[in-house]
Amino acid sequence: MKKYGVLGTGDVARVIASKLVELGNEVMMGSRSAANEKATAWARENGERASNGTFADAAAFGEVVFNCVKGVHALEALGLAGADNLRGKILVDQSNPYVYRDGHISLDPAYSGDTCLGEEVQRFLPETKVVKTLNFIGSVMMTNPGELAEAPTAFYCGNDAGAKEAVKGILNAFGWTDTFDMGDISMSRYTEMLGAFWVPLFGQLGTMHWGFRLVTDLK
Amino acid sequence: MKKYGVLGTGDVARVIASKLVELGNEVMMGSRSAANEKATAWARENGERASNGTFADAAAFGEVVFNCVKGVHALEALGLAGADNLRGKILVDQSNPYVYRDGHISLDPAYSGDTCLGEEVQRFLPETKVVKTLNFIGSVMMTNPGELAEAPTAFYCGNDAGAKEAVKGILNAFGWTDTFDMGDISMSRYTEMLGAFWVPLFGQLGTMHWGFRLVTDLK
Repeated sequence: MKKYGVLGTGDVARVIASKLVELGNEVMMGSRSAANEKATAWARENGERASNGTFADAAAFGEVVFNCVKGVHALEALGLAGADNLRGKILVDQSNPYVYRDGHISLDPAYSGDTCLGEEVQRFLPETKVVKTLNFIGSVMMTNPGELAEAPTAFYCGNDAGAKEAVKGILNAFGWTDTFDMGDISMSRYTEMLGAFWVPLFGQLGTMHWGFRLVTDLK
Repeated sequence: MKKYGVLGTGDVARVIASKLVELGNEVMMGSRSAANEKATAWARENGERASNGTFADAAAFGEVVFNCVKGVHALEALGLAGADNLRGKILVDQSNPYVYRDGHISLDPAYSGDTCLGEEVQRFLPETKVVKTLNFIGSVMMTNPGELAEAPTAFYCGNDAGAKEAVKGILNAFGWTDTFDMGDISMSRYTEMLGAFWVPLFGQLGTMHWGFRLVTDLK
C-alpha cells in the first residue's frame, strides 16, 4: 500500500484515482478547493482509502503524485500544489497543452516548438522527478488497456531512471504489458502530439476504445 | 500499367519511384532541373520505364503524382510543377512541415496551429485531389510494411472519396494490408505530428524499421 496524490477532478483524475484505490492504495484527490463537489463525491464513493483536499493537501499526502489537470492549467495547479510538497517525489504528468478550435486540436504555442508541457513542468519543478505518460490515450483506456485484442504501447519518458522504472511498474499494475521508454523528458514533445489523434480517431471510429501499438519485430 | 510522376530526388522519392517501376508502371522523377544528377542516375538504374525531367515534366507525365519533396519546399516545388499540369489529378502528398533543431523536430509555425501542410497544399491546388499518406513512417518502410511481424497501419486522408479509394489501392500494392481513412485533408494535421516520432524512436531503437499499428478490436 502506498499513498498517492491525484491533482484534478476530471475524467482522467477519477479514472486514475479510482484504479489506485482499487489496487489497494490510499489516494487523495486534490483540487482548487477542499470543498470541491466532484472530489468530495469521488472520495465518498471510493471507500475509506479515498479522500480529498486542496492541490497542496494532495501533493503533500502523496508519495507519488499524478498531474491530471488540463494542460492549460497545469503550471498554475502545480504552483498551488507547491514545489515543497513535491520535492524529491515522482510526478506522473498526464497533461497536454491543447487548444481546441473548430473541431481540431492544436498545440499551445507557449508549450510547443522548441519546448513542450512536459519539459516546462520539469523546469517549473526542478527537484521533482517528472515522468510523462498516459497522455496519448483516452481516459477510458488508461487503466484498461487489456480490453484490446492486441496490447497497445505505453510510451513514457523522463530524466530520472529510477522514477521511470517505478512508473513502469505502475503502468504494469494498470494492465499495460507493452511499455516503451522514449528517453528524457524532452521526448514528451512527441506524445503530446500523439495525444491529438483522439480527434480523427473519435471522428472515424466513434469511440475512445483504441490504442497505438508500436511494432518493432521483424518477420 | 499507369504513368506516375514523382516530385523529389531524396530517399522518399527514390523508394516510391523504384517501387512504382517494380510494379510495372512508367515513372518520371521530377526535380528543379532536368539535368539533376540524382534523378538522372535513378532513371538510368531503373530501366526503360524510368525517366526524369523537371517538376513540370513529371507533373504533366503522371496520371497520379507523388509529392516527395521536403515540406519546407513543397509549395515552391508544386508551383514549379504547375497547377495546370496537376489539374484533376490525384496528388499523393508525403511531405511534412518539419523544422529540425537541437536533435528535435518541431512543426513549422506557417503550417501548424489552425492549418497544416496537407491543407495548404490542397488550398494551393484547389482543382487537384490531394491525398495525404505515408508521411508518418520512415522511407525504408513505405513500400516494405510486410517486413514487420504485425501489420502497421497506413493512415490516409483527403477530400475526394474516389481519390482516397485509388490511393488505398496503391497502398495495398505497396504491401499495406491495414489502412485507415482518417477523413478530410485537415486530418493531415495529426499524421504530420505522428511523423515526428521518428526522432525518439530512432534514438531508442537505432533503426527506422518500425511502424504504428492502430488497435481497435476488443477481446
